[in-house]
Amino acid sequence: MPANELGERLRVTIVGESHGRLVGAVLDGVPAGLELSEGDVQPMLDLRRPGRAPQSTPRRESDRVEILTGVYRGRTTGAPILLWIPNEDVDSSPYEGPPVPRPGHADYTAWIKYGGYNDPRGGGRFSGRLTAAIVAAGAIALKLLRTVLGVEVLAYTLEIGGVRARGDLTLDEIRRRYEDPLRCPDPEAARRMSDAIERARAAGDTLGGVVEAIALGVPPGLGEPIIDTLDGDLAKAIFAIPGVKGVEFGAGFAAARLRGSENNDQYVVEGGRVRTITNNSGGILGGISNGMPIVLRAAFKPVSSIHIPQRSVRLDTMEEVTLTVRGRHDVCVVPRAVPVVEAVVGIVLADHALRSGAIPSVLR
Amino acid sequence: MPANELGERLRVTIVGESHGRLVGAVLDGVPAGLELSEGDVQPMLDLRRPGRAPQSTPRRESDRVEILTGVYRGRTTGAPILLWIPNEDVDSSPYEGPPVPRPGHADYTAWIKYGGYNDPRGGGRFSGRLTAAIVAAGAIALKLLRTVLGVEVLAYTLEIGGVRARGDLTLDEIRRRYEDPLRCPDPEAARRMSDAIERARAAGDTLGGVVEAIALGVPPGLGEPIIDTLDGDLAKAIFAIPGVKGVEFGAGFAAARLRGSENNDQYVVEGGRVRTITNNSGGILGGISNGMPIVLRAAFKPVSSIHIPQRSVRLDTMEEVTLTVRGRHDVCVVPRAVPVVEAVVGIVLADHALRSGAIPSVLR
Amino acid sequence: MPANELGERLRVTIVGESHGRLVGAVLDGVPAGLELSEGDVQPMLDLRRPGRAPQSTPRRESDRVEILTGVYRGRTTGAPILLWIPNEDVDSSPYEGPPVPRPGHADYTAWIKYGGYNDPRGGGRFSGRLTAAIVAAGAIALKLLRTVLGVEVLAYTLEIGGVRARGDLTLDEIRRRYEDPLRCPDPEAARRMSDAIERARAAGDTLGGVVEAIALGVPPGLGEPIIDTLDGDLAKAIFAIPGVKGVEFGAGFAAARLRGSENNDQYVVEGGRVRTITNNSGGILGGISNGMPIVLRAAFKPVSSIHIPQRSVRLDTMEEVTLTVRGRHDVCVVPRAVPVVEAVVGIVLADHALRSGAIPSVLR
Amino acid sequence: MPANELGERLRVTIVGESHGRLVGAVLDGVPAGLELSEGDVQPMLDLRRPGRAPQSTPRRESDRVEILTGVYRGRTTGAPILLWIPNEDVDSSPYEGPPVPRPGHADYTAWIKYGGYNDPRGGGRFSGRLTAAIVAAGAIALKLLRTVLGVEVLAYTLEIGGVRARGDLTLDEIRRRYEDPLRCPDPEAARRMSDAIERARAAGDTLGGVVEAIALGVPPGLGEPIIDTLDGDLAKAIFAIPGVKGVEFGAGFAAARLRGSENNDQYVVEGGRVRTITNNSGGILGGISNGMPIVLRAAFKPVSSIHIPQRSVRLDTMEEVTLTVRGRHDVCVVPRAVPVVEAVVGIVLADHALRSGAIPSVLR
Repeated sequence: MPANELGERLRVTIVGESHGRLVGAVLDGVPAGLELSEGDVQPMLDLRRPGRAPQSTPRRESDRVEILTGVYRGRTTGAPILLWIPNEDVDSSPYEGPPVPRPGHADYTAWIKYGGYNDPRGGGRFSGRLTAAIVAAGAIALKLLRTVLGVEVLAYTLEIGGVRARGDLTLDEIRRRYEDPLRCPDPEAARRMSDAIERARAAGDTLGGVVEAIALGVPPGLGEPIIDTLDGDLAKAIFAIPGVKGVEFGAGFAAARLRGSENNDQYVVEGGRVRTITNNSGGILGGISNGMPIVLRAAFKPVSSIHIPQRSVRLDTMEEVTLTVRGRHDVCVVPRAVPVVEAVVGIVLADHALRSGAIPSVLR
Repeated sequence: MPANELGERLRVTIVGESHGRLVGAVLDGVPAGLELSEGDVQPMLDLRRPGRAPQSTPRRESDRVEILTGVYRGRTTGAPILLWIPNEDVDSSPYEGPPVPRPGHADYTAWIKYGGYNDPRGGGRFSGRLTAAIVAAGAIALKLLRTVLGVEVLAYTLEIGGVRARGDLTLDEIRRRYEDPLRCPDPEAARRMSDAIERARAAGDTLGGVVEAIALGVPPGLGEPIIDTLDGDLAKAIFAIPGVKGVEFGAGFAAARLRGSENNDQYVVEGGRVRTITNNSGGILGGISNGMPIVLRAAFKPVSSIHIPQRSVRLDTMEEVTLTVRGRHDVCVVPRAVPVVEAVVGIVLADHALRSGAIPSVLR
Repeated sequence: MPANELGERLRVTIVGESHGRLVGAVLDGVPAGLELSEGDVQPMLDLRRPGRAPQSTPRRESDRVEILTGVYRGRTTGAPILLWIPNEDVDSSPYEGPPVPRPGHADYTAWIKYGGYNDPRGGGRFSGRLTAAIVAAGAIALKLLRTVLGVEVLAYTLEIGGVRARGDLTLDEIRRRYEDPLRCPDPEAARRMSDAIERARAAGDTLGGVVEAIALGVPPGLGEPIIDTLDGDLAKAIFAIPGVKGVEFGAGFAAARLRGSENNDQYVVEGGRVRTITNNSGGILGGISNGMPIVLRAAFKPVSSIHIPQRSVRLDTMEEVTLTVRGRHDVCVVPRAVPVVEAVVGIVLADHALRSGAIPSVLR
Repeated sequence: MPANELGERLRVTIVGESHGRLVGAVLDGVPAGLELSEGDVQPMLDLRRPGRAPQSTPRRESDRVEILTGVYRGRTTGAPILLWIPNEDVDSSPYEGPPVPRPGHADYTAWIKYGGYNDPRGGGRFSGRLTAAIVAAGAIALKLLRTVLGVEVLAYTLEIGGVRARGDLTLDEIRRRYEDPLRCPDPEAARRMSDAIERARAAGDTLGGVVEAIALGVPPGLGEPIIDTLDGDLAKAIFAIPGVKGVEFGAGFAAARLRGSENNDQYVVEGGRVRTITNNSGGILGGISNGMPIVLRAAFKPVSSIHIPQRSVRLDTMEEVTLTVRGRHDVCVVPRAVPVVEAVVGIVLADHALRSGAIPSVLR
């Protein structure tokens, strides 16, 4: 019962807490023979760090990752890889005091589940800080996919605060997503998103949004139906990112309003290979990749920490109280979630590529 | 690597094919001591059967379930329970001939993945027929939840072909969902859905829709973050239902457009228990149930089998061809998916109730 | 938590009870494309049947296996394979009456664990009858190993009632093991074993013994240390056979009395391949096969059902009683365990061959 | 496919290499609320350290363990616990040079399996050094068992180099096992074992032996047959300890030579509880604990590193060579394996106690 483990054949175990000594991950199942150093991981971690962008938390972490095991002479050995990212800029003072759950956070459910023994500082296990470990693990999975199969995973900010990027973005535009602090490849939309964030911040409030991810070059045949489907495993993994409230593939919820004749992706031969004219399926049919781009979207709720008084309950006395959340927080996490979504997609795709044999156990 | 297994502590393995001898399920992990007979399973299976409703396939299956193992003197023994539902009304003639994948179906991806050895008759493993086995297993999970914890799971048709039920349905109205052939508790919407189905049928076309599920009485504390979250496991399981393209919880995708102050569910004390004023979270925070109703929605794409010519490719020769799908099919599966969604939700909730200890290993 | 499942990549789930309607197995993970019919399974099942040999139970089962799912046009499809062996010759009358555990059987522990709800008839889930399902599943695993890798698994009776076969048996002699009713390839030892069985029967008593298994042609590299070792997984699986009390590999317990210089298997090159001069390791080093024959031995305790009065306790009243076991039983199960050990070894080896990629997901 | 993970409900993942930066473990599934600090782990680790005893390696490691995650205010939180033991006294010089497998070690099989990419220094993943991580994890499992259930696990040296301890040792004698450097509670036998070790050392040779483990206070009902049996899971875990070639329970291999009437453990009532007069079963029937002491024995082969020239093969050129093993090694690891066996038994028992509900998810 792997409560903290993602993947079957490539397995990522996430350790650590927001205000503890570290966050980290164990990757088991990476094939032997992959060239690997911290230099393969650090750049992606840096993309997740709170930047100087106005929507970001003032917490400053250098996020220096170290690879502690599983690599010898610059290559993976087939042994588990332990990744370590120390926590540095910790201020736990806002989390002392009686147990008053912050609305929208996991404080209440964690308190119930763990009998009050959970580490509440900074959200403990439920903090977005844990996604640093996911990103570090994902960077390795993505390198594996890229090196062995030529797979490319591109996530970007599709929507923030109701402002949506253009629907006709080209791949080249999307590839430049990290040039924008909001990770939105549509500059006009990015400007309006930025304004919306500014207005929310001024009101002590927060925003949500939608991240879209596209995986190119995924070979057909990944996915293990009828339960370990590729879409099901991607969805489950995406829900491990704090704040996600919905996941859809291809046409997604809009497909529910199409007719079969509109939604079906018809087949043609192109360059000697079977492909579909449209991609309403998002690259997955029957839980198995069909060789077209995998397309998914994840809906993020607005950040739960707002600077507006809210009603809550003191759990040890059952008194109703008014709570004003302190601590340092993002106004909108969607931009920082972009590399996290890429990481999660990379882990799941690499797991399934290993399961199906598309990636071998040893790289020779 | 349980490709065909759902759940950790309560584990459902799905066997069978659409046109083979049977579909069935093995349930492992049901506590010893639960009263159980076919009479607990058959009624729910009957709700999934294609009725005389106009949207349904003409395939006629009596769907008589038998419990073959794991029960002794009318009670579960703790041993695996094998459920068997014979296939009776099989006509495989439309599935003979060269391999030409039907758009929207899993034909192409299955052919690729299994090297052409998959059973193509009626979609084989990828047929909606397999959901009969899921419903049978789910009926037992739901009985367990109901008996031990008083949990009630209510799914219903929220939307078909763009027609949406009223947003203010009462629980009493929803409890009468099965009185309507479309499983929609809003009679006015049901009428318009029915018209939409009639129009689609007349055009040889098909419709999709949305099923909403509500689980009442779920104790707080179910879910095993940070990976085996309750929402993640529910989502993964829902994607095992053929045709699902999106899953959302509570406010779902709409939450991405709310501000934190609108979306946060504030806490109050009611009847000595903590509860939230609103339920935008859909009863899950940080991957753990909070004691409020679990609310989720699943988007179903339109049925892939349409009576309109489509482009496809003959896979053994790579010729482009025009295909007109034969076989017997539903115009819209959403009404028949309603008990399937209930079953899936029941299996996942029972699994997590066992994992957390809320349901014991032996019922005494 | 797969309480009734054996294997990761090839997964066998065992269903049924001794006196229920059937025993059976679900095999998940068999590659698509393997030719398969009942004719591949029945002969091995027949080897496990109680014969006319004097040590065997008088229970008469025809043990006709049916393959119900997962095969299409004579080949596996990649879907789970459901095997069914109906129970026919059931007489449950000795198992009615108050709960008085038979010494040596699982009656007491099952009663405790399942709160008295377990099926006690014929030992229920704990009966040797369940090994029929293991043998059926194993026959398929062994065919897979033989067909794809040329692996051959040979088990035989090494010892019964203290009588041990010669230590210098040739492979050719061992290959004729099934010509002897006791499955002992040393005719002189077999005669003395037979005498020992006769004496035990006359005394209303029972015997145990040792089965040795040899697997030839196993490629080097199977096993997933440091936990899912090949020897560890074999040992665990062997302990699933009723009556096993010890497992050893190669020199086994005797190795504990050797010096390193005696026990170490030194390396040479033979026919262009690395091999060891001796095989004290039993073909496994560090949990990984080394290309030499896998050699293991399993110790079976004497059959627990004896016709001699024994002390026991009536569990519902806690009265001490004297019990004389009724029912139909073997005097010594070792001969019938021989194909069971082969089956178990086959399942574990096939599982690891799939895990390491030595057997592919699809046979082309 | 958890290649490096032990346990289902309590899961231990082992990381690190002999000559890398650390060995460590992640424990997932420890209930929230257990008091825990390094002081609970260090003493057991110290028992495993190479002492000044003559049979031990000269490698000197301080083996200071740190608990890095999962503990807050002195109690477990329900989150994964990361344990870290730095490697300090590393001399990798003997492991440079061409790949020539040392007989008896995993060098050859690791080289084959990981395509030559495995870390060969000090045996890499296959070193006894990894057992430090197992002991650290086991110390926590044992504390959990002791605190919640009153279980006590006692392993000791039963046999070294053919010298066997008395068969009538009392529990009090066994409890003093760690007073002897060989962990043998029979002083007379310990003296002769010590002589045998001295003679082997003088010859440049090594010895093996047998460790017996007894678990007292184990509640009846642990074990999840018919596959995840308590004996099967114990056996598998024991085989993860380097050098183990055999495992047996209760009467073990000797049971194969007993008659049923001798081997069966008859039931009586004692102090209001059911118990058996003898304990030939070793406390496990049908894969489930029966409340009697669990008794198992593990056979260790002699240490593979001997100072006597041996034949081997240079794997990159396939030349036959003569090898004299360098490096620092024990003459007999059995004494140091004693706490390792206790740790492994503790992990498996705690896992099953959690699976059965005997230990709850939260300690209140």
